[in-house]
Amino acid sequence: MLAAKQQAMTAQLTPLRWLDPPNGPAIVLLDQTRLPASEKYLTCTEVPQLIDAIRRLAVRGAPLLGIAGAYGVALAALRGDDVEAAAPKIAAARPTAVNLGWGVQRALDAWRARGSGLAALAEASGIAIEDATASAAMARHGLTLVPPGARILTHCNTGQLVSAGEGTAFAVILAAHRAGRLNWLWVDETRPLLQGARLTAWEAGRAGIPHSVLADNAAAALMASGQVDLVLTGADRIAADGSVANKVGTYGLAVLARHHNVPFVVVAPTSTVDLGTPDGAAITVEHRPAEEVASLAGQPVAPTGTQAYNPAFDVTPPELVTALVTEEGLIHPVTEGSLRFHGVA
Amino acid sequence: MLAAKQQAMTAQLTPLRWLDPPNGPAIVLLDQTRLPASEKYLTCTEVPQLIDAIRRLAVRGAPLLGIAGAYGVALAALRGDDVEAAAPKIAAARPTAVNLGWGVQRALDAWRARGSGLAALAEASGIAIEDATASAAMARHGLTLVPPGARILTHCNTGQLVSAGEGTAFAVILAAHRAGRLNWLWVDETRPLLQGARLTAWEAGRAGIPHSVLADNAAAALMASGQVDLVLTGADRIAADGSVANKVGTYGLAVLARHHNVPFVVVAPTSTVDLGTPDGAAITVEHRPAEEVASLAGQPVAPTGTQAYNPAFDVTPPELVTALVTEEGLIHPVTEGSLRFHGVA
Repeated sequence: MLAAKQQAMTAQLTPLRWLDPPNGPAIVLLDQTRLPASEKYLTCTEVPQLIDAIRRLAVRGAPLLGIAGAYGVALAALRGDDVEAAAPKIAAARPTAVNLGWGVQRALDAWRARGSGLAALAEASGIAIEDATASAAMARHGLTLVPPGARILTHCNTGQLVSAGEGTAFAVILAAHRAGRLNWLWVDETRPLLQGARLTAWEAGRAGIPHSVLADNAAAALMASGQVDLVLTGADRIAADGSVANKVGTYGLAVLARHHNVPFVVVAPTSTVDLGTPDGAAITVEHRPAEEVASLAGQPVAPTGTQAYNPAFDVTPPELVTALVTEEGLIHPVTEGSLRFHGVA
Repeated sequence: MLAAKQQAMTAQLTPLRWLDPPNGPAIVLLDQTRLPASEKYLTCTEVPQLIDAIRRLAVRGAPLLGIAGAYGVALAALRGDDVEAAAPKIAAARPTAVNLGWGVQRALDAWRARGSGLAALAEASGIAIEDATASAAMARHGLTLVPPGARILTHCNTGQLVSAGEGTAFAVILAAHRAGRLNWLWVDETRPLLQGARLTAWEAGRAGIPHSVLADNAAAALMASGQVDLVLTGADRIAADGSVANKVGTYGLAVLARHHNVPFVVVAPTSTVDLGTPDGAAITVEHRPAEEVASLAGQPVAPTGTQAYNPAFDVTPPELVTALVTEEGLIHPVTEGSLRFHGVA
């Protein structure tokens, strides 16, 4: 009964949905900046509202950004906007996650091919279905890497809030929990925007997963204490050489995992691999405003006017990635050659 | 004129002072939990008030805790309290920093030897003078490790707020700034209590040092970008084998520094070395309440009831420490043998 209720609750978590007329066309977003304190929805009836929501991280996470970008093109088309002008603006709202531009491009191509807003909408819907399917496949493949009694450390948020399915790394964590293999989930709080403490802890609680949050800087001590068996993260962009751009802090975890002989596994759909980016140095890393670091939960935590170094992402070289889990299977080791061999690059 | 004014401002920063009758005996503390928003002073006329201030981190930092502990014994003695009962309570207020128990013991020994509260007070004052002298010597020795144009990364807070002088690691940073060798100071925000963002950024601003704060998890990307020439931290306790207990996050920085071939240097007075602690495993690490991670100033940043892993310190093995700077000079490499050779252990 409780389990059924929990599953029902979990099913209610819809970070993005499309709204048809008469109330639409519109994109309805769960405002992730307000979680976990309140569950508020934003209705974007115009493209600039969507772009603003993407920039503010009200909608976020690599897979969901792909879906949001595609629906944005559909919205522009069905509103009768200039689609060719709107599409690049949506794609440029955030620079690092490859999925945003990829989703925009797929919907744009569909619109161009058939000259119909409904074609773009169908494409967006198709991307969402593919994402849910890929998520389930990643969970299945990733589970094979989780030992019984695993204590898993994760960073940022990679679950239902970023996906039409159950996400990327978090989908593997959910699968491990259901299979009875998960002993404990360690959740990096993920400064500055606290996606771990706010969102992953919330998703873990909803799913009944035993977990603790930690300051990002405590991960080293935790690994040294022998309490981490596996690190699982998502990815925002994977270069052709296997370099992984993901939420800032990921690279440090990969270095620490190597130092402590803990496997460091990246879970991402093949759509995250960007052949147009040859290596890690070619990845554009978004730098965000100082206020995100100089304040915490809206309160100032540093003297007024303090400068900040605030990259939203960092880049992990492929030699530090133990394995890459995609919807196609496992890639290990992660090299340009192995990505090509598996048909990913 | 501006420089003179700045120096005058800097001189005003008194984290702890003794108050004689008629308004005392009392210990006046700058309440560091309220910085940088407000400069409020706490007057402790009774020992339990001091113990509470130590527990809450209103007064904090290894050298200052030694001074505070000694003055606490003097306060007990001059009030006519049971000194033998009060002393161990003060020493136990926080477990990790060796200086607290050491300062308490020195004042207690003086009180026992001469049976006078004034003897304990003189000892406390002597510890403060020694600390200021040691700070100046550490700055002088540490400066020899700072290359011209240095970009230094530091963690937590190690300046005038923790010292009767200019502190430990921050004293070296100030010396480098005055010598024209400091290009930039990178300040780890130091979650969960943000001593870097709140206190070190404030001290750096007062001293006119160019600086930026960063989320602790961004240090890895910063090092990978080649923008860190030296990491400088303090220490709360150094075991006989050279293992360094310091603010949580220090160990991770040491691993990252090694990975990026950046020197990792610890600055601490010889009083921080504890011969009673043979190695890192023997160091008691204080674990603090989950609320420090799960909320900020009463505002939740994680779902209500979320558990947290919240060690206040971590332990860096000596092989990751490039050099130890004490008031006596440089110790390099840091091993049990070299500590003994230098007469420190």
